Amino acid sequence: MTIGMFDSFITRGWFAPDVVAIWRDTATLQSWLDVEAALAQAEAGLGLVPADCAATIAARARAELFDLAGLNAAINHAQHPFVPVLKQFEALCGDPAAGFIHLGATTQNIFDTAAALQMLQSHQLILSHLARALLRLRILAGDHAKTLQAGRTHGQHALPMTFGFKLACWIDELDRDGARLTARAADSFVASLGGAIGTGAALNGRGAEVEAGMAALLGLRPAGLASRSSYDRMTDYVAGLGLLSGSLEKIATDIVFMNRTEVGEVAEAFHLGKVGSSTMPQKRNPSTALRLISLGRLLRARIPLCYESMIRMDEGDSSATNVMDVTLPEIAVIAGSMAATFAELVENLVINSDVMARNAALTGGLIVTEAVMMRLTEAVGRNDAHEILYDIAQGAQSSGKDFATVLARSASMQRFSAEEISQMLHPANYTGRSEDVAISRSCGDKG
Amino acid sequence: MTIGMFDSFITRGWFAPDVVAIWRDTATLQSWLDVEAALAQAEAGLGLVPADCAATIAARARAELFDLAGLNAAINHAQHPFVPVLKQFEALCGDPAAGFIHLGATTQNIFDTAAALQMLQSHQLILSHLARALLRLRILAGDHAKTLQAGRTHGQHALPMTFGFKLACWIDELDRDGARLTARAADSFVASLGGAIGTGAALNGRGAEVEAGMAALLGLRPAGLASRSSYDRMTDYVAGLGLLSGSLEKIATDIVFMNRTEVGEVAEAFHLGKVGSSTMPQKRNPSTALRLISLGRLLRARIPLCYESMIRMDEGDSSATNVMDVTLPEIAVIAGSMAATFAELVENLVINSDVMARNAALTGGLIVTEAVMMRLTEAVGRNDAHEILYDIAQGAQSSGKDFATVLARSASMQRFSAEEISQMLHPANYTGRSEDVAISRSCGDKG
Amino acid sequence: MTIGMFDSFITRGWFAPDVVAIWRDTATLQSWLDVEAALAQAEAGLGLVPADCAATIAARARAELFDLAGLNAAINHAQHPFVPVLKQFEALCGDPAAGFIHLGATTQNIFDTAAALQMLQSHQLILSHLARALLRLRILAGDHAKTLQAGRTHGQHALPMTFGFKLACWIDELDRDGARLTARAADSFVASLGGAIGTGAALNGRGAEVEAGMAALLGLRPAGLASRSSYDRMTDYVAGLGLLSGSLEKIATDIVFMNRTEVGEVAEAFHLGKVGSSTMPQKRNPSTALRLISLGRLLRARIPLCYESMIRMDEGDSSATNVMDVTLPEIAVIAGSMAATFAELVENLVINSDVMARNAALTGGLIVTEAVMMRLTEAVGRNDAHEILYDIAQGAQSSGKDFATVLARSASMQRFSAEEISQMLHPANYTGRSEDVAISRSCGDKG
Amino acid sequence: MTIGMFDSFITRGWFAPDVVAIWRDTATLQSWLDVEAALAQAEAGLGLVPADCAATIAARARAELFDLAGLNAAINHAQHPFVPVLKQFEALCGDPAAGFIHLGATTQNIFDTAAALQMLQSHQLILSHLARALLRLRILAGDHAKTLQAGRTHGQHALPMTFGFKLACWIDELDRDGARLTARAADSFVASLGGAIGTGAALNGRGAEVEAGMAALLGLRPAGLASRSSYDRMTDYVAGLGLLSGSLEKIATDIVFMNRTEVGEVAEAFHLGKVGSSTMPQKRNPSTALRLISLGRLLRARIPLCYESMIRMDEGDSSATNVMDVTLPEIAVIAGSMAATFAELVENLVINSDVMARNAALTGGLIVTEAVMMRLTEAVGRNDAHEILYDIAQGAQSSGKDFATVLARSASMQRFSAEEISQMLHPANYTGRSEDVAISRSCGDKG
Repeated sequence: MTIGMFDSFITRGWFAPDVVAIWRDTATLQSWLDVEAALAQAEAGLGLVPADCAATIAARARAELFDLAGLNAAINHAQHPFVPVLKQFEALCGDPAAGFIHLGATTQNIFDTAAALQMLQSHQLILSHLARALLRLRILAGDHAKTLQAGRTHGQHALPMTFGFKLACWIDELDRDGARLTARAADSFVASLGGAIGTGAALNGRGAEVEAGMAALLGLRPAGLASRSSYDRMTDYVAGLGLLSGSLEKIATDIVFMNRTEVGEVAEAFHLGKVGSSTMPQKRNPSTALRLISLGRLLRARIPLCYESMIRMDEGDSSATNVMDVTLPEIAVIAGSMAATFAELVENLVINSDVMARNAALTGGLIVTEAVMMRLTEAVGRNDAHEILYDIAQGAQSSGKDFATVLARSASMQRFSAEEISQMLHPANYTGRSEDVAISRSCGDKG
Repeated sequence: MTIGMFDSFITRGWFAPDVVAIWRDTATLQSWLDVEAALAQAEAGLGLVPADCAATIAARARAELFDLAGLNAAINHAQHPFVPVLKQFEALCGDPAAGFIHLGATTQNIFDTAAALQMLQSHQLILSHLARALLRLRILAGDHAKTLQAGRTHGQHALPMTFGFKLACWIDELDRDGARLTARAADSFVASLGGAIGTGAALNGRGAEVEAGMAALLGLRPAGLASRSSYDRMTDYVAGLGLLSGSLEKIATDIVFMNRTEVGEVAEAFHLGKVGSSTMPQKRNPSTALRLISLGRLLRARIPLCYESMIRMDEGDSSATNVMDVTLPEIAVIAGSMAATFAELVENLVINSDVMARNAALTGGLIVTEAVMMRLTEAVGRNDAHEILYDIAQGAQSSGKDFATVLARSASMQRFSAEEISQMLHPANYTGRSEDVAISRSCGDKG
Repeated sequence: MTIGMFDSFITRGWFAPDVVAIWRDTATLQSWLDVEAALAQAEAGLGLVPADCAATIAARARAELFDLAGLNAAINHAQHPFVPVLKQFEALCGDPAAGFIHLGATTQNIFDTAAALQMLQSHQLILSHLARALLRLRILAGDHAKTLQAGRTHGQHALPMTFGFKLACWIDELDRDGARLTARAADSFVASLGGAIGTGAALNGRGAEVEAGMAALLGLRPAGLASRSSYDRMTDYVAGLGLLSGSLEKIATDIVFMNRTEVGEVAEAFHLGKVGSSTMPQKRNPSTALRLISLGRLLRARIPLCYESMIRMDEGDSSATNVMDVTLPEIAVIAGSMAATFAELVENLVINSDVMARNAALTGGLIVTEAVMMRLTEAVGRNDAHEILYDIAQGAQSSGKDFATVLARSASMQRFSAEEISQMLHPANYTGRSEDVAISRSCGDKG
Repeated sequence: MTIGMFDSFITRGWFAPDVVAIWRDTATLQSWLDVEAALAQAEAGLGLVPADCAATIAARARAELFDLAGLNAAINHAQHPFVPVLKQFEALCGDPAAGFIHLGATTQNIFDTAAALQMLQSHQLILSHLARALLRLRILAGDHAKTLQAGRTHGQHALPMTFGFKLACWIDELDRDGARLTARAADSFVASLGGAIGTGAALNGRGAEVEAGMAALLGLRPAGLASRSSYDRMTDYVAGLGLLSGSLEKIATDIVFMNRTEVGEVAEAFHLGKVGSSTMPQKRNPSTALRLISLGRLLRARIPLCYESMIRMDEGDSSATNVMDVTLPEIAVIAGSMAATFAELVENLVINSDVMARNAALTGGLIVTEAVMMRLTEAVGRNDAHEILYDIAQGAQSSGKDFATVLARSASMQRFSAEEISQMLHPANYTGRSEDVAISRSCGDKG
């Protein structure tokens, strides 16, 4: 319906403003300039650039001093995305400082390092939105440690559990997602200064020192061997974002289901003025959860672009880097927006415990067939118990008869008292570790 | 490096302005309003809306009358992308016309039909950029019908051909791509009016007539059964764009190779001021061809999103439609920009016929081993001829000896005169249909 | 869990034996031999091969005469997939026929043409399985033209419809899928004979005639310009299979939902002995529909491989063709198995009309809020009617009051009698074109 | 061309037999039985199963005792992949042991744990093949630390380097790939025992202990919370395999280019009998490198399936697990085969150092324009130096004049002696850290 999803009046509400701000044109330009400034300062520290020139370079490294429209025209003419920036920057610095800008660097060194800086900022926001969501999930897990709910597999009631247990499973996975991203950030976001092909030839053997100095100033690790043709580090981080996205898309799918008209176990927040349809006034849609799924798909589809971008000709290849120049920012913003949207979703989720209980009872006890089977197992072994219960449970379903009644009358169950059978058929008596697990995750235990 | 690739000062030069213009926010809003106007007029034609109300609706259906900032705020509050538009539109029309806007429609009917209109416009531009490129390719095919070039398979010289033949192969595939898109446009871009779930219940059985009338006014076919849950028609068109994109990415890959320093058979246009590197002043990169490859990857990665968007819950599902609301426009713009970029690339391609000839001679005749084999086949059969030539050609390569010399001395070749052997080893004598095919495609024959 | 999914004891039941049979090693070998036989016969018709040699070649072109283990060893040694086949074939034919095998062809001509033959056979089976499913769907659409069911959008009840209408939407999309495949088969499956790079040099200008003759014998169209570097035609067909797959995956998703414990509108066939779980004896899972979704994902993930395979270096590139050598057969078998699985699924689907009706009534009339709105529209215009009903319907939901009661008491509704309101609130009175559409599709009308 | 790529006579040579063996049907069955045996033994250790029964179970847990054809028929009838295995296993164990098989487990616990075991074995083989390749690469890096080669960016000569430096860049990336996989294996491959939905209800609160015991016996970590609906751990490992695959695909692409007829810097091993074409006897193709690229694409296309499989309904969902049941083994085998193929490729790579040197000299000094610029930078600053050299270098190229000559005559260069200029134009004098880096990686330093 529109291009420019991050800016369109129709869709910009989907995206977290704080992460968007990191990747706007002026922020990107500033990030480039920050890298040029750090480069000059590092080189000054090693005596390669006069200190006053480095100071001038650092002082003029301010995006607001640049003429962006002019840059665009010059970029189109030069068919190069950065040389026109350098030209404006040189004019802003004047001689002699202008002669010491970009010393020993190639464009992609600047772009890669700037992107690392922006990714690091994005990473911190992603984790903070995720932390906000996890905080709420932990509270809910504690509150609903005992809230009975049907566990479902393959779309069918399976065994009873508690809603707190479901939340604990989500928390467990999200904790792993967060831990992975944290672990990878340090290795994935590096400062690169290898020059045109990574040999550092332009710096007479001082390249590694300059890179280390520049990295220290920017709060990044040095690349070590700044090959422009390796993209495994950033792809590794993006792959981790994909895992977070996958977890969130799974959870959103569960929420959409639990919010179904027939299920009714949860509902998204509603306020007067929220509209579900231009023609159906009654509509209350899980629009936040559905949007979260949409964002998950948008992110997921971009992961193959990263992997394909690892395949670069020789020592550098713009057919690959062009792709990531526009795709990496999109991934960062979508991931951050997913975390923010998810926090909003769970912070406002309405939980209908009574409906959960009612649904758990829907099958008239079939949901705890395993409970009966395990009791029978003690007498006849698991294999025979499964066969006996299979015949009873399937027979009840095929004939449309009440499971409890058929069960109570079966020969195999005569060894149990009516009270014992009644206890077995209580879903709340067969939730296993549900409560314990929910409580432990509500306290932040990692399993 | 930046979000908002269609607008960023860094990257907006990648995209064709004419196709971009179709999908800007105001153009999209106008497209929605065009659909609402056509709807009201079609309904007026059937007596469902007073004629003067329809006239008012049509007259006020102008995007420039809307407050876009206000729309954004209202969309965020309503969490609905269109009801706020309707509210502003109603205010612009006033009573009684306001009461007849959007009659019998649901939001997605408007969005889907508007997107079809915008896709149709995009389609026409894509074809016109492609036609421009094909015009140039046909001229080149004629000019180079006899220009000798090495044919290559698996990265190795295979048989000689002419550059015109290579161009003819490109033309053939691109002709098919264009023909497919033309054939699909009619079926893929339809006007939809089925109401909330496609039953047309709000129009008392007149829905099909209204849809037909609206379609006629807009120059589209009616959907017939306007299911919101079917997305096969648009995906079919996008799949066709993917084929065009694949063809262009293949050609661009060939151009990048032919432009390699070691190969040098073609070069991209150069002008003073075009810059290849911030640190290597000598650089002349095939940046247009590389960018074409990048755009191809961006498009290719979006095709799975369309296929996945076909899988929609029940009668409507925003988790799928959200995705295409932002992805379909991107695909259209990328495809149009690829066609435009390709036209620019081939219109300015420099062709070095002499280098092509030199390269064709690089292997000292090994490239025409098949020619010798076919002559020998007449005497000993294809199977034995292959074995004999295999031994000679591989032996020459392993020993580093000159193929022609080894060949001339071999027992099997004694049946031929030196002059005959010399003729066999002339690459230009073994280009098969190259010239004929090139000439026929230069004249626009479709095979 | 296992490789070799088409053969594994665990998973081979997923795949349609008739389509699998087309792509087994011996069938592929036979297909290659059929192409070689047709080639020789076509060449004999043009006087390029002695008639008795062509007859010998055709007579010996039988896969069962080959030593497959020997072929495997020879292929590994030669690192070529076809020359060892030729060697065995030459030995089988003996002189002089052996000398006329493969005349003017390159391996990929044989492989591409053979694959076209196998795809054509697969295509016919896919369409026949689809036809079987459509036959059943048409009967169901007629039977359930009036079966009331809740229409749902975004996971929530939207408007009432009939189950026959839902089926009609499926039928409409599947009819388009089938028509597309039929239309494409002719253009996508071609006979190729261009020799090593497509110039036909080995046949002294007779290549086009040979290709035409070979094509006629095989029941295919000639490629015309047999470029080994174009893959648009086959990709086009695969893209069409992707559309069919998308349609089936959508329908399967609907069936899984309708089969949910809480929904219960349909159920998969059950027989005693079908097992849902190793630990939950009561389980009846929609395992066929879930498997259909799985197959859809397996197919969908392979589409990008086809598009990427269009990007081939120069005149031929095994990095691309290797991929499709193994992926195209997988796609054909998965598609055929999806159609077969779908036919089995719908032929055995249990439909619970009473549950559908009960679910349609779940919201106490909210599902027909639009019906009330449209009646009110006649009095106050669509815009005001939407606002009034929004307030009533949302108010009822927020307060937990009965919608019908709140509605009847509202000032705006006093213009209607209680009987009129009661009629408006009957879901069965607001199914629009549902019945008509269902009937028309049950009769095979295409809209 | 064929289904069953791992078994087809045409393609089975592509795959590493040792990894294939891990995932054959009988090995998978054995892996399942190993898990069942460990489960029973762990339970015996906790007093939940009689010790002699556990002993019987362990003793009979041998795949060769099973009737696979019978299993396939029973699986098709039961429409369940494991219950028939249990039935045969029960019969093999006899009473009373049969009654203690699979106690507290659900099918997916067994499958997931068995897959973890098989992945761990695959992981070890992948690393060992990779280690073999790295060993060879390190030797080559040492040998070619000083071998001059053109560094290339965007397909054009950029700066000189050494072949050892290129190898060092590959080694660096591959070292990271290996380290990542090692780090992830421990977290990704876990033993799961949560029962039907993860609550462990069937084991009366002993589930966690049983899982821990079972894990210890199998050499895996316990899952902790054995949710069947989380797939992040395995996807994380697969994402790491994707990184390795991306690295190998990049390197293979470089090798194919360096092997181009016009480039000739490396060649794949050749032996008499290796065939490049059925019609071009001279052909020597880089078929191993091309096949490595093909395998990379096959693997890359499967990564989205893993991510999509994370999105699972509720507590378990076979639409997702079916997909991974067949795709995870494929990924493991493809990855292992890529590592093995790569080892073979580099172990047999022919390196033409003289051609590398000749190519580095192709541009007549343009390749070291930066070297000249850096010297000029000392006098006039980097910005002016770039402009001066831009004019000279581009002027020379546009006019077709010799760069060295034009350079020597330019006013700006008069400050240097002819000898100084000659030294600047020697590519071997401007390879920066190439040699040092190559030496350090040849010694196994990690940067």
